[in-house]
Amino acid sequence: MAKEKLHHILEAQQFSRQWLEEEFFPELDYISKLFEPDPVFKSMPVLGSPAYSTFLKNKSVCVLFYEPSSRTRISFGQAAGLMGAHVESTSEAKKFSSAAKGESLKDFIRTVSDYHFDAVVLRSDYVGGAHEAAKVSGTVPIINAGDGPGQHPTQALLDVATIRKFIGTLDGLNVTLVGDLKNGRTVRSLAYLLSKFHGNHLSLVAPQSFQMKPDILEKLSGRVSFSQHSNLLEIAQNSDVIYMTRLQTERIPYMKKLPLGWQFVLAKRFLHAKDVSISEAVMEKVRDDAIIMHPLPRSEGFDELPERFTDDPRVRAFRKTGQPGQTGMGLYTRMALLKILLW
Amino acid sequence: MAKEKLHHILEAQQFSRQWLEEEFFPELDYISKLFEPDPVFKSMPVLGSPAYSTFLKNKSVCVLFYEPSSRTRISFGQAAGLMGAHVESTSEAKKFSSAAKGESLKDFIRTVSDYHFDAVVLRSDYVGGAHEAAKVSGTVPIINAGDGPGQHPTQALLDVATIRKFIGTLDGLNVTLVGDLKNGRTVRSLAYLLSKFHGNHLSLVAPQSFQMKPDILEKLSGRVSFSQHSNLLEIAQNSDVIYMTRLQTERIPYMKKLPLGWQFVLAKRFLHAKDVSISEAVMEKVRDDAIIMHPLPRSEGFDELPERFTDDPRVRAFRKTGQPGQTGMGLYTRMALLKILLW
Amino acid sequence: MAKEKLHHILEAQQFSRQWLEEEFFPELDYISKLFEPDPVFKSMPVLGSPAYSTFLKNKSVCVLFYEPSSRTRISFGQAAGLMGAHVESTSEAKKFSSAAKGESLKDFIRTVSDYHFDAVVLRSDYVGGAHEAAKVSGTVPIINAGDGPGQHPTQALLDVATIRKFIGTLDGLNVTLVGDLKNGRTVRSLAYLLSKFHGNHLSLVAPQSFQMKPDILEKLSGRVSFSQHSNLLEIAQNSDVIYMTRLQTERIPYMKKLPLGWQFVLAKRFLHAKDVSISEAVMEKVRDDAIIMHPLPRSEGFDELPERFTDDPRVRAFRKTGQPGQTGMGLYTRMALLKILLW
Repeated sequence: MAKEKLHHILEAQQFSRQWLEEEFFPELDYISKLFEPDPVFKSMPVLGSPAYSTFLKNKSVCVLFYEPSSRTRISFGQAAGLMGAHVESTSEAKKFSSAAKGESLKDFIRTVSDYHFDAVVLRSDYVGGAHEAAKVSGTVPIINAGDGPGQHPTQALLDVATIRKFIGTLDGLNVTLVGDLKNGRTVRSLAYLLSKFHGNHLSLVAPQSFQMKPDILEKLSGRVSFSQHSNLLEIAQNSDVIYMTRLQTERIPYMKKLPLGWQFVLAKRFLHAKDVSISEAVMEKVRDDAIIMHPLPRSEGFDELPERFTDDPRVRAFRKTGQPGQTGMGLYTRMALLKILLW
Repeated sequence: MAKEKLHHILEAQQFSRQWLEEEFFPELDYISKLFEPDPVFKSMPVLGSPAYSTFLKNKSVCVLFYEPSSRTRISFGQAAGLMGAHVESTSEAKKFSSAAKGESLKDFIRTVSDYHFDAVVLRSDYVGGAHEAAKVSGTVPIINAGDGPGQHPTQALLDVATIRKFIGTLDGLNVTLVGDLKNGRTVRSLAYLLSKFHGNHLSLVAPQSFQMKPDILEKLSGRVSFSQHSNLLEIAQNSDVIYMTRLQTERIPYMKKLPLGWQFVLAKRFLHAKDVSISEAVMEKVRDDAIIMHPLPRSEGFDELPERFTDDPRVRAFRKTGQPGQTGMGLYTRMALLKILLW
Repeated sequence: MAKEKLHHILEAQQFSRQWLEEEFFPELDYISKLFEPDPVFKSMPVLGSPAYSTFLKNKSVCVLFYEPSSRTRISFGQAAGLMGAHVESTSEAKKFSSAAKGESLKDFIRTVSDYHFDAVVLRSDYVGGAHEAAKVSGTVPIINAGDGPGQHPTQALLDVATIRKFIGTLDGLNVTLVGDLKNGRTVRSLAYLLSKFHGNHLSLVAPQSFQMKPDILEKLSGRVSFSQHSNLLEIAQNSDVIYMTRLQTERIPYMKKLPLGWQFVLAKRFLHAKDVSISEAVMEKVRDDAIIMHPLPRSEGFDELPERFTDDPRVRAFRKTGQPGQTGMGLYTRMALLKILLW
């Protein structure tokens, strides 16, 4: 059977293990390799344009954000720009806040589709925005860069790419997801993706009121095993991957109206910071071959992953001694996806 | 007499029929043709860079917006970027809101003129901003992308370009302008431009308090015939073009201070939505060879052009079966103008 | 001794006279020359790409602003873009306003460092932000584009570049700094830089409560002579350079909370506009070979440098008869710096 061409990137569930292994990882490895230090290239500064610089020549990408997120927006813009695309970017797409937002999003997508963009990277401010966009974008691929509290599939892809890079496999892992599992879309998308592989166990560590929702657990049930915990310390030693998240105060109705200082204090209290955060005691338990991840941003105060652990070799959120962190894997992931979609 | 070189684009009145026919439309047709599917080009993905990709090579364009308008800003940025220009874009030019805004705009234009931009696309937040900018920009062309409630000449050009494309002529037309004719700058600019051609009749459909202002009517008088109406249904059958607009709540002092929900309700009531909006009854009357246009955005609720009519073949706001809508004609129009000014 | 390679641009004090004369000014002169009208080039529009257009080929620059400043942001973006770099730019980096801002800035820098940017241009919203960024950016150069009320070193470089261009020397000058010397970071950075040269005298003209702070004066003491004044008129005739500044109302705690109209009125009163602003009487005293500068923006109302003097040949804030002003020298300065850092 002929391979089905990838058209949109909407949710973590859409990726099969086969697609990951036959399309995505090879492309990702190829892109990553182009960024490795290369003495031959270094000596030819003029002729030696890196291969990636023309992958999207004469292409253009519209980066359309209805919620601010400089980090993700810059990541996509840089991914497209490094490959030679023209990038138009806005974070002010949202002007109105009425019930009609779905309609206005669709008109915006219809408009930029007619502007001859080759792809639209969309951060919508409500669940399902990317799916609605895909319905009206015609031949133009939509890449979901987060749909409100819904999905964030490229984050899930960069997360599994990071695990694969540093652990070497995506099967038979003990992955510990920690923090606000109720509102965090990254943990949800990652859990879906890990369930495509074999023998993984998810340890869900959160205060009871921030545990993963039953409907998600039901979907995962039978495809991946999981257990619920309220204390990271007891599970740290047995983890191959510890995935930290912050409290998503901006997703919690009664909280997002409070002054930031209050949100900060309440976040600390609700998360029982000691039990679901990285501490010296936890770090003593974490094995040397395990990795600690964080989708960023860290919470105010960095309670869940304090600054003093940033440079620990097991923390792979950022670049370390010539090795990309999750951030760099995010760049490579978005470059690989854009190349697969547009080349 | 030698042709006068176009320097700035400030208002719809500046364009003669001769310039439109001898300069603008030929350039527009050439640009449009470069976007048509071309089997030869498709088979040469590497060598076959589209001709437009170098029209603005080594040029740079500053897109300077004092009012947010992602749609127009992206349209100009994409137009310049597709032709190879470097684009610097800001929508935060406005920081202060005092009486001195004219002075501060002029300093901004003086500044970017000294940054070696080849053109400045300006959306100012008051009438006359583009003219003031043109006085101090030296040799740098100013393109008016809307001066508050004043003019929006590139919108008027894309509107006549759309009519010409789908109707085939700009003479002897019955053009029906519908909605908020008092505050809508696009209908005003379009009316000016249509008055350059022969035998056109404008039907102005609006609630009495939103009719076109007497000073505009006086200027049009003798150059184009017009009639005033309060009900679209009665005039629909006789229209070659029906041009819908939304209530410009943000231009109405007492309205723009209300919460958006209230603006929405009042807009519905003031426009007597049934009489000045597209309905099934209206659509039955509209001829098959007529077109329905909208400058976008549609109002909250889409009352004047409901979502269910979006895919009707007569509605030409958006791309349809391989044909650009007004949106795509906007891209081609801005590309043609930038090429005429900068090449 | 081998020259030390410039890595970061953090503060005016870091530049030696030797570096300015052996590295910066030659590069600046070379860049400036590429923008001069050239009849040979003009006749070859296709082949004749300007030399600068490839200086940063395959490079990318992240322009990261925690405070809005369209002017400076566009200046850096254009500088990088004209030399062929891909530019990612954001002015919305600041989302939170808590005590943890230093931590969150560092994470942002760690992130973009891992996105393979070749340089980060940073406007932080607190003193020391650029230094903190430099600690965590690894091999990626940080260019300080203003750290709150702290430093603005590229402004100081463009200021001395302007003086050098129009006066011809940076030694033995009478430089008069006027206005809000307490809060203005540009005068502070310029004073540091002028103290590297010989025989300069600084006349500090400000109302007593806006005079330069004693700690700055102490640092300058012994390296440059200075005198304090409260009236510009008495010192105008003896000045080679008159450097005007506006009241930095946004840096004055009790003022920035007032409505803009009140800030405007208070600014007028506090600055005793007649004594520390350009007037006809002052202009009569200023010599023909002296220059008047302003780092922009001018204050609301332009009290310190009224609009009617803008076109006077001694005012060098803006382009004049084919000569760049401070604004154009700012573009060349930033191009030269990026080339030195990245080429």
